[in-house]
Amino acid sequence: MQQAIAVLDSGVGGLTVVKEVMRQLPFEKILYFGDTARTPYGPRDAEEVISFTREIVDYLIQYQPKMIVIACNTATAVAMEDIRYRVNVPVVGVINPGARAAVGRTKTGVVGVIGTEGTIKSGAYDTALKRLSSRIEVVSRACPSFVPLVEDGNFRSIETFRTVSEALSPLRDPTMDCLILGCTHYPFLADCISEAMGSEVVLINSAEETARDISTILQENNEMSDVEEVPVHQFFCSGDPRKFQDIAQAWLGEQIRLTPVVWQVPHIGA
Amino acid sequence: MQQAIAVLDSGVGGLTVVKEVMRQLPFEKILYFGDTARTPYGPRDAEEVISFTREIVDYLIQYQPKMIVIACNTATAVAMEDIRYRVNVPVVGVINPGARAAVGRTKTGVVGVIGTEGTIKSGAYDTALKRLSSRIEVVSRACPSFVPLVEDGNFRSIETFRTVSEALSPLRDPTMDCLILGCTHYPFLADCISEAMGSEVVLINSAEETARDISTILQENNEMSDVEEVPVHQFFCSGDPRKFQDIAQAWLGEQIRLTPVVWQVPHIGA
Repeated sequence: MQQAIAVLDSGVGGLTVVKEVMRQLPFEKILYFGDTARTPYGPRDAEEVISFTREIVDYLIQYQPKMIVIACNTATAVAMEDIRYRVNVPVVGVINPGARAAVGRTKTGVVGVIGTEGTIKSGAYDTALKRLSSRIEVVSRACPSFVPLVEDGNFRSIETFRTVSEALSPLRDPTMDCLILGCTHYPFLADCISEAMGSEVVLINSAEETARDISTILQENNEMSDVEEVPVHQFFCSGDPRKFQDIAQAWLGEQIRLTPVVWQVPHIGA
Repeated sequence: MQQAIAVLDSGVGGLTVVKEVMRQLPFEKILYFGDTARTPYGPRDAEEVISFTREIVDYLIQYQPKMIVIACNTATAVAMEDIRYRVNVPVVGVINPGARAAVGRTKTGVVGVIGTEGTIKSGAYDTALKRLSSRIEVVSRACPSFVPLVEDGNFRSIETFRTVSEALSPLRDPTMDCLILGCTHYPFLADCISEAMGSEVVLINSAEETARDISTILQENNEMSDVEEVPVHQFFCSGDPRKFQDIAQAWLGEQIRLTPVVWQVPHIGA
């Protein structure tokens, strides 16, 4: 049996990573877990996010995946190191790939980062960028109004453009040439963000970059699928299965094999 | 002592990879070996290229590098698998990173590849691209006139533009949206190539992409330098040291610590 790549997220945002893995690595089998019953993770404290992430990893590890992908910025920021010590397979988050892409593409050395309040407060992108190169200057900003726009499916309206443009105006800097979309929801707003920032600013899509890093690591470990056919992926969610299925099918454009998961955890649904 | 990244090439072309590693991973120490006495490798048969590459790797391995980078398309195409079995550290070539970047960036699925005759004939890029995704359509072309232009320092003249434009005209295809510069010399001609192909074609610079893969693998293996200072790099060459030093200093913009190497091999300098 082909070993899968296990992708986990607090909800549906991580489907942007799934879509990119399906595009860049079409023969890799994916197991996706969306913790839709407990979304969003952003406002929760670190301890809780670590505990949720551990639960999901313990669940997915039963399927003996060859890799764990934490497709959620908040969980990557606080739980990634913990999970790396917990499992024997490579663990990939969404922050380092985006940081690496920005360092690769910037010419001016001035990189912007936008994300949820939790992600920006954690300073995880600053740390990741400076770890690669202390010469990088980071300008960051939390954009709490963006996720609701995406969840309302409101990607391209004039109102959306106005909100996006207003939120980004303090970021505008003639020397900045790269902007990291530091939240898995933001690629849905890429058109508006690009229009607001101007065409000379390259948008770094963490989903695309994470899929790229997954590809590099699988190839380096000689663990790429050798079956040349598109596999059947499997999706799990902890919340309303119908809602998840609708969103996943609309975004991925495929029939989804979905397994709703009922969590036996006292602090949810109580 | 900090473990270095060992980069080897048939001559000076691999300095494009060195420059990108210095930019993307400024705290990593580099050992570079340019086999300038036996350059170019392109017209040599595979057995000879494998034997030369082995000699250089055996030489560099004395310094206990943490990674071997084969910064030469020809050597990557024919010797990479051999070297992977020979050493206990990760071996990175220049072909997979470029292929991976193209699969990540193409929207149309039509990818162009240009390289030396040896590289194009080997079909190594086609194999690497199809290995990632059988949906990719590859259009490739050998450009034997490009390396001499670079070696003459003739990067931007009208004559260079005419030669480049003529060589690329059979490649022009309205559906192609990515072009892999499949030779370490070609980034020097990027301006002319871009003008000839049009702004809608993204040029994939293998040097930039290889540095990116190096970064991913070092981070995954937890082997990034933890010394936050720019190290002294070391350069070896088998041919004329003064000529090598001039080119390396001009390209890297730094004082180079160079160790000329005299090869005790009967078939050179005889």
